[in-house]
Amino acid sequence: MERLKRVVLDRLIRYYRYLAEFTATHPVDTITSARIGAALDVDPSQVRKDFSAIGLVGMSRVGYEVCEVCRTIRTVVGFDATYEAVLVGAGRLGAAILAYPDFERYGLRIIAAFDVDPFKVGRRVNGRTIEPMDELPGFIRERDVVMAILATPAQAAQPMAEFLVALGVRAIWNFTPVRLTVPEGVLSRNERLSAGLAEIAYHLRRIGASEPALAGVGEEA
Amino acid sequence: MERLKRVVLDRLIRYYRYLAEFTATHPVDTITSARIGAALDVDPSQVRKDFSAIGLVGMSRVGYEVCEVCRTIRTVVGFDATYEAVLVGAGRLGAAILAYPDFERYGLRIIAAFDVDPFKVGRRVNGRTIEPMDELPGFIRERDVVMAILATPAQAAQPMAEFLVALGVRAIWNFTPVRLTVPEGVLSRNERLSAGLAEIAYHLRRIGASEPALAGVGEEA
Repeated sequence: MERLKRVVLDRLIRYYRYLAEFTATHPVDTITSARIGAALDVDPSQVRKDFSAIGLVGMSRVGYEVCEVCRTIRTVVGFDATYEAVLVGAGRLGAAILAYPDFERYGLRIIAAFDVDPFKVGRRVNGRTIEPMDELPGFIRERDVVMAILATPAQAAQPMAEFLVALGVRAIWNFTPVRLTVPEGVLSRNERLSAGLAEIAYHLRRIGASEPALAGVGEEA
Repeated sequence: MERLKRVVLDRLIRYYRYLAEFTATHPVDTITSARIGAALDVDPSQVRKDFSAIGLVGMSRVGYEVCEVCRTIRTVVGFDATYEAVLVGAGRLGAAILAYPDFERYGLRIIAAFDVDPFKVGRRVNGRTIEPMDELPGFIRERDVVMAILATPAQAAQPMAEFLVALGVRAIWNFTPVRLTVPEGVLSRNERLSAGLAEIAYHLRRIGASEPALAGVGEEA
């Protein structure tokens, strides 16, 4: 199979999420590309093309078998496998990541969380105990961990990424603002919710729908 | 000022986050574009161009006043204002959004959460009580709410978006898999953490670093 482009992957996962939710409330065996397309605002011919790219063939007028579509997307994307990841940096952002509910559904298991801060080490956060950073190398080697979720302060991000890669990590899900430099063969994916918020704030400001801050003097000092 | 492109906005917010974290640990008054660029892997000339676009001028060799940069970005982006938003859909995803720590820092306040499920209504989630959906219209009108965070099931997303827009909402932060259709002048921003996870899973699968699921019969079908 050809390597799928990121936009195709993004659409496949949208189809998958939609079908998983749809079948939870509607007991159907098959679904048409027209229905999927209408629900997700994707042209039905695009849906068929994406499905065809992963080997799915629809039946005339009947459409696609929902179970087969979901199973195939899971397999192709890799959600059919499980991924054990470590969380590095267990501050407020790290804690929210530990609380995020959808990851297990997609095969991700955060099996340990690490922090340098001695005040955090030993604390329980959403069911996991924060481990000290000096136990990270042994843990990664012993468990053959290939994925890390990075939620450290910005200045620690690049050195930590290099450390993780040296230990054998092959994918870093990066929640810091830093754009990481990683070697060939290692994936770094950046995730920044604040970028989404920035776009919204900017829009509301331009249409004059925001309220001016009350205490705006010397805030950043 | 020209309308800033999304990529510029994204960079501005990265600069802001970096400077906010950097100054929290380093007591400096000024910073050079070279230093910012090196930390965030952005060409220093790009940093200067972005700053220039929002009216910031650096001093030769000294660079930029950190306070001025942060204040200007806050103002331009709109983080200097506060935004009151409602959360619509208070399931597991909604609860994680309520727990996300960074929003207040960027001026976003989630002032109420609503759900249709009578079993959820009245429950406390991260310090907020889930309100019944039939109180949403009155609440939005009374408080002049212009922003909503959407975390409903997929099939409810588009009808709910239209309902919100009819009530006066001008920006929807969309955590559902549905690509929303909204009228001119209304912003819909999609946010999908599972897309990030899909890319990572796909990468790990391709390099053979994932563990096959136990029930993997007929995987490539």
